[in-house]
Amino acid sequence: MARADFPIPVRALIDELKRLPGIGPRSAERMAVWLLQNRKAEPKVLAEALVKADEEIIACPACGFFATRESCGICDDPKRDDSILCVVEQATDVIPLERSGAFKGRYHCLGGKLSPLDRVSPEDLNIPSLMRRVENGGGMEIILALGADVEGEATSNYLADMMRGKPVKLTRIAQGLPAGGGLEHADELTLIRALQGRRDF
Amino acid sequence: MARADFPIPVRALIDELKRLPGIGPRSAERMAVWLLQNRKAEPKVLAEALVKADEEIIACPACGFFATRESCGICDDPKRDDSILCVVEQATDVIPLERSGAFKGRYHCLGGKLSPLDRVSPEDLNIPSLMRRVENGGGMEIILALGADVEGEATSNYLADMMRGKPVKLTRIAQGLPAGGGLEHADELTLIRALQGRRDF
Repeated sequence: MARADFPIPVRALIDELKRLPGIGPRSAERMAVWLLQNRKAEPKVLAEALVKADEEIIACPACGFFATRESCGICDDPKRDDSILCVVEQATDVIPLERSGAFKGRYHCLGGKLSPLDRVSPEDLNIPSLMRRVENGGGMEIILALGADVEGEATSNYLADMMRGKPVKLTRIAQGLPAGGGLEHADELTLIRALQGRRDF
Repeated sequence: MARADFPIPVRALIDELKRLPGIGPRSAERMAVWLLQNRKAEPKVLAEALVKADEEIIACPACGFFATRESCGICDDPKRDDSILCVVEQATDVIPLERSGAFKGRYHCLGGKLSPLDRVSPEDLNIPSLMRRVENGGGMEIILALGADVEGEATSNYLADMMRGKPVKLTRIAQGLPAGGGLEHADELTLIRALQGRRDF
């Protein structure tokens, strides 16, 4: 007697779900069972959403954000300020910045950050397209909004070197105490950066 | 200027992923972005697995376990013991029992447990098909392997009432200390059940 297991199509679905980030074997099993047993589940609708997104979504050739073949929600918005360009690591970094409502300019997504350990070198990032925008920008402000970790810092420094002597005003986002965070929870480096970045009151 | 968001096909995919059990908005976003950006992601393969499982998998009309239209891995296994039938709440409960290797008989999945609060009454469960198996079983053993919670107990008691006078030997799985669990972590009811269920050493 073989130990009974899910039939092959269920097992195949579990295996595919298990590959998703943050999904372990038990969650994958739970999701598959829900998809096949729950009346409210619509596995075909999910399947169609996957195929449609996979077929229609590209990285915008200009800024790197998620775009359709027809348009990029950022590059095609005539109301955005062309004189400020915010450089971020990932296309997904655009979403929290947009939600903050604090930025009304254009974006440039590098597609990662320099990391010798992960074998990410300058050629792997969208740096040539950034430099073209810089050259044609006519004195625009470039805000480096990369992470405050070692790789983010290294990438910021690399870009700053590249832009030396170019017709741009280069700035970077502030590092310091996170909103709502007390000094007792801040690590030393955060406090050093917060002190270094102090401003007139 | 409208705040930029993911293009509609990405947003639609996130919305569908968000409906999965245990998946919040942030996980759904992370999964969608991974599916669309990671080289190793194969969204079409996942879509096909969904459609295939949705089309091919049914609840076995005899035992309620996951089956294809052609066969049920449990009912069609000639090596299983026809003289023992294990009654479980959900089809998914079969998997851990099978993994334990402790049971070699047949199963019957009720499809739930009695729960007035969730409006689950006897008509909502696979009880008629169970009673048919009981009637035709010729003195088989029926093991009630339902949960040790209030609804599981109520369902066990209901089934025991139904089977009174029928040609079966009715048993239920033991309640007591979980393997590896010390007394200090056991709640009172577990200890009461463990004492009540004590056996000769």
